[in-house]
Amino acid sequence: MTVPINAMIIVIQCTDRVGLVATISSLLAKHQLNIISMHEHVDNDARLFFMRVDVEGTIDAFTLKNELGKVLPDGASIKTNPVALKKIIVLVTKEYHCLADILVRNYFGTLGAQVQCVIGNHNTLQDICKRFDIPFHLAEAGSDKNAFEQDVKSLIAQYDFDYLVLAKFMRILSPGFVGSFPMQIINIHHSFLPAFAGANPYRQAHERGVKLIGATAHYVTNELDEGPIIAQQIIPANHSLTVKDMVKAGKEIETAVLAKALKLVFDDRVFVYKNKTVVLE
Amino acid sequence: MTVPINAMIIVIQCTDRVGLVATISSLLAKHQLNIISMHEHVDNDARLFFMRVDVEGTIDAFTLKNELGKVLPDGASIKTNPVALKKIIVLVTKEYHCLADILVRNYFGTLGAQVQCVIGNHNTLQDICKRFDIPFHLAEAGSDKNAFEQDVKSLIAQYDFDYLVLAKFMRILSPGFVGSFPMQIINIHHSFLPAFAGANPYRQAHERGVKLIGATAHYVTNELDEGPIIAQQIIPANHSLTVKDMVKAGKEIETAVLAKALKLVFDDRVFVYKNKTVVLE
Amino acid sequence: MTVPINAMIIVIQCTDRVGLVATISSLLAKHQLNIISMHEHVDNDARLFFMRVDVEGTIDAFTLKNELGKVLPDGASIKTNPVALKKIIVLVTKEYHCLADILVRNYFGTLGAQVQCVIGNHNTLQDICKRFDIPFHLAEAGSDKNAFEQDVKSLIAQYDFDYLVLAKFMRILSPGFVGSFPMQIINIHHSFLPAFAGANPYRQAHERGVKLIGATAHYVTNELDEGPIIAQQIIPANHSLTVKDMVKAGKEIETAVLAKALKLVFDDRVFVYKNKTVVLE
Amino acid sequence: MTVPINAMIIVIQCTDRVGLVATISSLLAKHQLNIISMHEHVDNDARLFFMRVDVEGTIDAFTLKNELGKVLPDGASIKTNPVALKKIIVLVTKEYHCLADILVRNYFGTLGAQVQCVIGNHNTLQDICKRFDIPFHLAEAGSDKNAFEQDVKSLIAQYDFDYLVLAKFMRILSPGFVGSFPMQIINIHHSFLPAFAGANPYRQAHERGVKLIGATAHYVTNELDEGPIIAQQIIPANHSLTVKDMVKAGKEIETAVLAKALKLVFDDRVFVYKNKTVVLE
Repeated sequence: MTVPINAMIIVIQCTDRVGLVATISSLLAKHQLNIISMHEHVDNDARLFFMRVDVEGTIDAFTLKNELGKVLPDGASIKTNPVALKKIIVLVTKEYHCLADILVRNYFGTLGAQVQCVIGNHNTLQDICKRFDIPFHLAEAGSDKNAFEQDVKSLIAQYDFDYLVLAKFMRILSPGFVGSFPMQIINIHHSFLPAFAGANPYRQAHERGVKLIGATAHYVTNELDEGPIIAQQIIPANHSLTVKDMVKAGKEIETAVLAKALKLVFDDRVFVYKNKTVVLE
Repeated sequence: MTVPINAMIIVIQCTDRVGLVATISSLLAKHQLNIISMHEHVDNDARLFFMRVDVEGTIDAFTLKNELGKVLPDGASIKTNPVALKKIIVLVTKEYHCLADILVRNYFGTLGAQVQCVIGNHNTLQDICKRFDIPFHLAEAGSDKNAFEQDVKSLIAQYDFDYLVLAKFMRILSPGFVGSFPMQIINIHHSFLPAFAGANPYRQAHERGVKLIGATAHYVTNELDEGPIIAQQIIPANHSLTVKDMVKAGKEIETAVLAKALKLVFDDRVFVYKNKTVVLE
Repeated sequence: MTVPINAMIIVIQCTDRVGLVATISSLLAKHQLNIISMHEHVDNDARLFFMRVDVEGTIDAFTLKNELGKVLPDGASIKTNPVALKKIIVLVTKEYHCLADILVRNYFGTLGAQVQCVIGNHNTLQDICKRFDIPFHLAEAGSDKNAFEQDVKSLIAQYDFDYLVLAKFMRILSPGFVGSFPMQIINIHHSFLPAFAGANPYRQAHERGVKLIGATAHYVTNELDEGPIIAQQIIPANHSLTVKDMVKAGKEIETAVLAKALKLVFDDRVFVYKNKTVVLE
Repeated sequence: MTVPINAMIIVIQCTDRVGLVATISSLLAKHQLNIISMHEHVDNDARLFFMRVDVEGTIDAFTLKNELGKVLPDGASIKTNPVALKKIIVLVTKEYHCLADILVRNYFGTLGAQVQCVIGNHNTLQDICKRFDIPFHLAEAGSDKNAFEQDVKSLIAQYDFDYLVLAKFMRILSPGFVGSFPMQIINIHHSFLPAFAGANPYRQAHERGVKLIGATAHYVTNELDEGPIIAQQIIPANHSLTVKDMVKAGKEIETAVLAKALKLVFDDRVFVYKNKTVVLE
């Protein structure tokens, strides 16, 4: 039995059928839970129902989850999360912009998560972490990928965490590693995917002469840059930008898109199915 | 008694209380109505509940409205609209862009409404109406405002209509006229209101040196350019634009914003209260 | 010898060297030409210089071009265009939105070009052309591509034109056809290229779960959807949009992007090199 | 005499006349200066010419300025700035977002300026400054405005600086103070000015029911929120946002707009006249 709490995010994903909203909202009303916000989505092709409800009122999470399980279709995924901070580990290489943004929000309590530690395959960003009293670990990025990932794995094993955030982490993780953390690894890629996947997207963008450049935050899967997209955005570009200018301009949007995606994830708004996301804002 | 129909938009605005979603969705489920989409909003300060539900299933609108009335709070506004085209009258002066966009969508059946006629205080746009077989009436825009409005009133009295659309109609309507059609008159204003209300907004914008210019679609009330805002958007501007350039660039966004606002209104997505709108998309 | 004119667009593309701006502006000053606007760009990697100058003053275009040729690097491309309307032929299939926008602007004299005729491989859009007194020709779109293109070629041979505009023309033109009109064919593609080239971009976008959809106007080359990009833009998308919704929402942006690209091209602002464009706005 | 330098930004503002571009570019060519980029603007109504040139080559700034002065119209404002970091002092109250962004960019050397110190009328942000080794001074914000401003003045007198940046500094400075630093004080205001000037812009925006909220960076003059606008931008808003939500969402755009404006100013791209700006990007 869990302790009753006063605020809860209820997250449901199940087969669709007529009357689900009535079923759920009646159950919540029965418990005198006040609905602060309720968002639902139905994928008619896939016959799937998604719902996020933000409630206030006194109930214990276990009881509620149990009761919902009895009235919802078999196989329903039900989460009754307390409104609480997630825990994250951030992986970086040399670029500072996404990490610094995360550290600042973490420090001022607006990230929606707690940064447990930062792991880098270079020590460039060690000092900024130190300034914010966040542990920084250097993972030996030798030529042996397996050894490197073992190193990372033992580092993260020391912490409790909900998500691994790749904040401009420029190494490709192996299928074995990724497979250990399904839908727990979030990456920021510096293009509007699916355009310019892989290495050097700004160089690719410059050569193609596109009139906009973008950034995409997505869950990491074993298909490079092919995981479910959480958020993406673009800024205008033109002929006057060199590759270097694009890199510089892109950093602004990479920072903003990753920040937005993390906020959505930490706020329990993102559902994954069929390699894409439903984001209930 | 009305004939049962297969598709309906249910629009509800009432005092908020716990359990409204459950109440409504249970009633719909009882009638085997399939919810295609359901959007709700609660204004906690005003303690108001807003809902738009798009349902499929066989029911007559009168019965449903009646049953909803019994279970909803006293004073609830309930509409059970068949999915059908609205009827509109368009008022214009000389600028073509908004009118032409409306006429084209009307002609190709994508406006979400039927244009009954166009009334102009100049005959500049008579020919384009004729090309689309839409009646055009010239209202004598003499110096006598009262006579002019009487003229318009007798013209529109010949038609059945839901909304009057001011598509760059450059005369200010009197309180008496506006009061006759509450929340039925929609205007496009060429600025991001509340900035630059009144005459010559682009000249005002140019003088102020703003870095963006905009357009706002709103319901007309007796406070000039102060009615509830339905949609607004901006485009970047800079020092290189003359007033004339701003006028030209602005036309694109005026057209787009009015088109968007009309789509929302015709689709029963816009609620009005406290001189602002709730738009359930 | 040509007749002196009062307004001219000078367009120069040549090898870069120190002092080009001085050379050109001195020559213009010598002829008492008033520079209304002057834009230049240097691609340092390619060592190329691009310039567009808008001048007022009395001079004949031939003399000026000749004099510029003497002082500019060998092989310079120099155009001294009178400020005049371009001539275009529009190719369409069944979708109306881009064509209607072009016809409306053409009718009101704001297109920056004159529509000579419209050619369709279906007759769906014949009536709207007729309403605007624009000749419409049906090209027999049989299974024989060669015969079809011969048909189109004989139709366009009857007209004088600067550009062929593919306004949602849903057939792929052969290399032979495209090769006959280098950098004269402009297409609107319904995705933010290079993402989702080829058929059914909205279906591809829906399956990939992108959070934005876009449109791209580009010159047609023999690589499908790989020609130099003139303009592109995006709108936000999310899980709630079906493929059909995306198609509908996309039409708005397709119309806007093609309109913008045409304006840039007709205004002599677009330079092509290395399969990309320099757009001097 | 100054030491010759290799890179320089030349900034010119003067009365317009035919041939200015030729005059300037010829002079630069004579000195074998390579033009990296050249931007000019003419305000035809005001008959003013603005130019920013980025050159490479060996010349001393004094000589060049002197020679330009001889060939340009009387009264021309000419600056020949080395490509160097500006110096700034940041004034804050309690909100961290703009300051943290400035401190991070300063720390990583991408701000385009050096933060000399931070002055707060509360000590909330003292710790973050300390973490970045930036001096923080608390100015006693008593009820006596004059005493407060004297305090600030003696603090800033200790430093060399080019600009005072009000990074969410929530006190209105007196005409006397502002007059001491003409076009040297830059403020970020949390609305799309001229809408919602003064206090509580988000509350004003919420009450008016606008569909977009914005931020504006501007030079401070003695008319509250009426100074020349440097940069502004908006994000979409709707009925679902409370005032508190708007405040939160607005912080993101305030940070971005101030960052952009500072970059433009530090890069010598902003000219002021007639209470507005020319921004040569």
